Amino acid sequence: MAIKLAELAKLTGCELHGDGDCAISSVADIARAGEGDIAFISDLKYRKYLADTSASALILTEDLLAESQRPTLVSKSPRLTYARIANLLFPAESWNPGISDRAVIAESASLGADVYIAPGAVLEAGVVIGDGACIGPNTVIEHDAVIGARTVLRANVTIGHHCETGEACLLHSGCVLGADGFGFVRDNSDGKTENIKIPQTGRVLLGDDVEIGACTTIDRGALDDTVIENGVKLDNQIQVGHSVSIGANTIISAATAIAGSTRIGADCMIGGCAAIREHIEIADRVMITARTIVTHSVTREGASVSSSTPMDDTVSWRKNSVRFRQLDKMARQIKALEKQLAQLDKQK
Amino acid sequence: MAIKLAELAKLTGCELHGDGDCAISSVADIARAGEGDIAFISDLKYRKYLADTSASALILTEDLLAESQRPTLVSKSPRLTYARIANLLFPAESWNPGISDRAVIAESASLGADVYIAPGAVLEAGVVIGDGACIGPNTVIEHDAVIGARTVLRANVTIGHHCETGEACLLHSGCVLGADGFGFVRDNSDGKTENIKIPQTGRVLLGDDVEIGACTTIDRGALDDTVIENGVKLDNQIQVGHSVSIGANTIISAATAIAGSTRIGADCMIGGCAAIREHIEIADRVMITARTIVTHSVTREGASVSSSTPMDDTVSWRKNSVRFRQLDKMARQIKALEKQLAQLDKQK
Amino acid sequence: MAIKLAELAKLTGCELHGDGDCAISSVADIARAGEGDIAFISDLKYRKYLADTSASALILTEDLLAESQRPTLVSKSPRLTYARIANLLFPAESWNPGISDRAVIAESASLGADVYIAPGAVLEAGVVIGDGACIGPNTVIEHDAVIGARTVLRANVTIGHHCETGEACLLHSGCVLGADGFGFVRDNSDGKTENIKIPQTGRVLLGDDVEIGACTTIDRGALDDTVIENGVKLDNQIQVGHSVSIGANTIISAATAIAGSTRIGADCMIGGCAAIREHIEIADRVMITARTIVTHSVTREGASVSSSTPMDDTVSWRKNSVRFRQLDKMARQIKALEKQLAQLDKQK
Repeated sequence: MAIKLAELAKLTGCELHGDGDCAISSVADIARAGEGDIAFISDLKYRKYLADTSASALILTEDLLAESQRPTLVSKSPRLTYARIANLLFPAESWNPGISDRAVIAESASLGADVYIAPGAVLEAGVVIGDGACIGPNTVIEHDAVIGARTVLRANVTIGHHCETGEACLLHSGCVLGADGFGFVRDNSDGKTENIKIPQTGRVLLGDDVEIGACTTIDRGALDDTVIENGVKLDNQIQVGHSVSIGANTIISAATAIAGSTRIGADCMIGGCAAIREHIEIADRVMITARTIVTHSVTREGASVSSSTPMDDTVSWRKNSVRFRQLDKMARQIKALEKQLAQLDKQK
Repeated sequence: MAIKLAELAKLTGCELHGDGDCAISSVADIARAGEGDIAFISDLKYRKYLADTSASALILTEDLLAESQRPTLVSKSPRLTYARIANLLFPAESWNPGISDRAVIAESASLGADVYIAPGAVLEAGVVIGDGACIGPNTVIEHDAVIGARTVLRANVTIGHHCETGEACLLHSGCVLGADGFGFVRDNSDGKTENIKIPQTGRVLLGDDVEIGACTTIDRGALDDTVIENGVKLDNQIQVGHSVSIGANTIISAATAIAGSTRIGADCMIGGCAAIREHIEIADRVMITARTIVTHSVTREGASVSSSTPMDDTVSWRKNSVRFRQLDKMARQIKALEKQLAQLDKQK
Repeated sequence: MAIKLAELAKLTGCELHGDGDCAISSVADIARAGEGDIAFISDLKYRKYLADTSASALILTEDLLAESQRPTLVSKSPRLTYARIANLLFPAESWNPGISDRAVIAESASLGADVYIAPGAVLEAGVVIGDGACIGPNTVIEHDAVIGARTVLRANVTIGHHCETGEACLLHSGCVLGADGFGFVRDNSDGKTENIKIPQTGRVLLGDDVEIGACTTIDRGALDDTVIENGVKLDNQIQVGHSVSIGANTIISAATAIAGSTRIGADCMIGGCAAIREHIEIADRVMITARTIVTHSVTREGASVSSSTPMDDTVSWRKNSVRFRQLDKMARQIKALEKQLAQLDKQK
């Protein structure tokens, strides 16, 4: 598919400079763009590429317009315009409605209009599928779960009983919603040890426009439901514990784990491999950098927190790392030195 | 379902104070409990909720009994009594026995009495399913694997060939038992690089009452089997390497990874996101806090080990974090200062 | 299966000392080897086991030959010879060719000679399966994907549309290739927040002899493909972001996460639970130790980098860990002390 630049200007509300007839068929990095590509600059440090790029067209902020002769869309947010054009050029995959006779659908399941149910999908009793939803191959939806309109479940997804998704969600392959939360009480009476399971009776509830990555797991609530609000985007291999809530439009990168009953605000940005403790509160618009362990609540809106240690070459790291175990001693040594020195100073 | 408080007292062996006719239909946090709920206090810091709670009944230790007028069960371990009552009110899900004609069962597979085999399940040759076991939709059991009586495999589970579970286990969706362990020998001869795979010929053996979380992976042994003993509880997204053994009743939280041939004792508590090195030994009742990297054996029973770094606001963290790479230098500076000062002192 | 030692000597190109008729049926650790086992020593610290081992035969370097009377193969690399013998004694599982009538295969899919397609497998339109490939139970291959000759996909695997594997790959259960990469642009205009998805139009391309662990996820490229070169071995629960490339024969241990567009060289060794940032470059033969967070490029070939903190008992760790937040202050205190002391020294 190719779209003329003038048409893209209209569709994205950008001002057009130069040849509107130029045909755009793809987006690309400015450093590697070629014939048919549109590229953008979001950072002045890439300005140097403007002279030599082979992109057919550019997306620029107004102040950079003079630096290029190429056909250009002027945008206040070039990166956003780029994303919108990419979506026009590469519309999301769609499926022809239809129900495979190799799917297994309980009689009491209810299917909306224009749904696609792939081969091998299993829909248990009482399942409700919204209009235009798409259920991928070998995906399992346990009894009484509800899938919202236009929601897409890719292959090998599992939705636990009574869980619900909103509309227009996208759940990637291998994700699991609604496994039991991890709740046990250890019984040490009579000299034995026994781990007594606490029943997990809550659900998982997704809002609209939620995206869930491959092999991400979201546990059902213990008592209260686990709630993922509208527009939340979760990357792959994330673990969300029981009765967690995640506020609207929060984005979480891969391999992060969130322990039970924690409440995360809206519009947060959480880096990959973070670990967030149980029963804490995180305010709106908080930023958590990659590999941070969040050990207590972050109550200030827009705060940024971190905790990783810096990379070093292994030989230096080994020397420094052993000192970590002497930190308290070192701090006390410094204090003692200060005291001694003050003493000496006085004696002068 | 609702149960009268007097009946709950009898079933849990607790002393009843107040109205035994009061009907209990659910459990709840004391801060949010309402009509029909029973709540407990396990920590004196929640004592303040006693006056205002709307819970229909309470579970308290004897010393707190005087502080409330509500119907109460007296327990030495309120949290444990709470768990037992939750299990009475919310019994585990059960399945009517039956074998779906949409399951694929090899002729040589052997099925116990009263099993449930869901649609899409695949049981290969020589598989043995114990009495009352439940095999979920699209779950795959490879040849010659053995599933113990009353064990439940949820949806999309994979059990590798020759692996075995004990009785009354619960395996959540997406978990994989018996993939190959990760063993390679690098051949650098003749200037090339080749990674030679070491055959993984062991099995995975689960004891009784083991619970395995969603998307948790337990590799088959290299030579020796990977062994998970009775009552072990593993949360989601845990990785257990080849030939690891985990002692009875040990509990491990989500996203922890355990490298090959490590031996973990009984009754341990291992926090989330921990990483445990290969070929080490961890004694019984050891506590490992969240995000710890366990780099050598922990031989003292009941020890507690840690290694994460504390969360800070990102600006402060950045300043402190760069100093980590100067730790050895700092330690040597302190030593030099102490020496100089001692010199000065002598010269006085 | 048992093989005579003389035959093993021939097959591995090793010199034979002692009884070539001795029958070898398994490999084992020297400390636990018994009748029928062959064991090896790769490290002089295990030399002590030579006197007492019950192994039927040994693999030794020439300099150790004199220390044992047992039948022995002399090898420059005993560990490598051990691996080769293990492969002779325990050949990889194989499947009889055949196509289950319980698989769902699109008419336009193309199957090579001697393939095995298990029950429950779903092959969508345009899929191409190479000669001798094996597709496990309930595995899903989306439209237009290509599976190379002799490649094995175990159970419950998902291959995204248009993705391709090379020849003789092994993909373990639950892994997902070709889910969407995680790319969003946040639109904060007009006071609202919206996360605009960037279309993910690239593929995942695996070279030959690649092994992918259970529940490992490899995202499709954003624009450029995600590329895993020949001989790469990925353990379980690894996350590979969009448009990453991993050079030939690199080995990565479990639970490591690699963010988007990062390029990793050939022959690297990456430990478990590492986290690697987006858009960085890692040279060939780099070693990354377990739990390291790689925050910038590692451009020196053969470099080794680290960043974890050392394990300690929890009481000591707590004391030291709080000091991490004072590190910058401590460094400045040391500087001040040095200055004061220099002053004092001058005044003498």
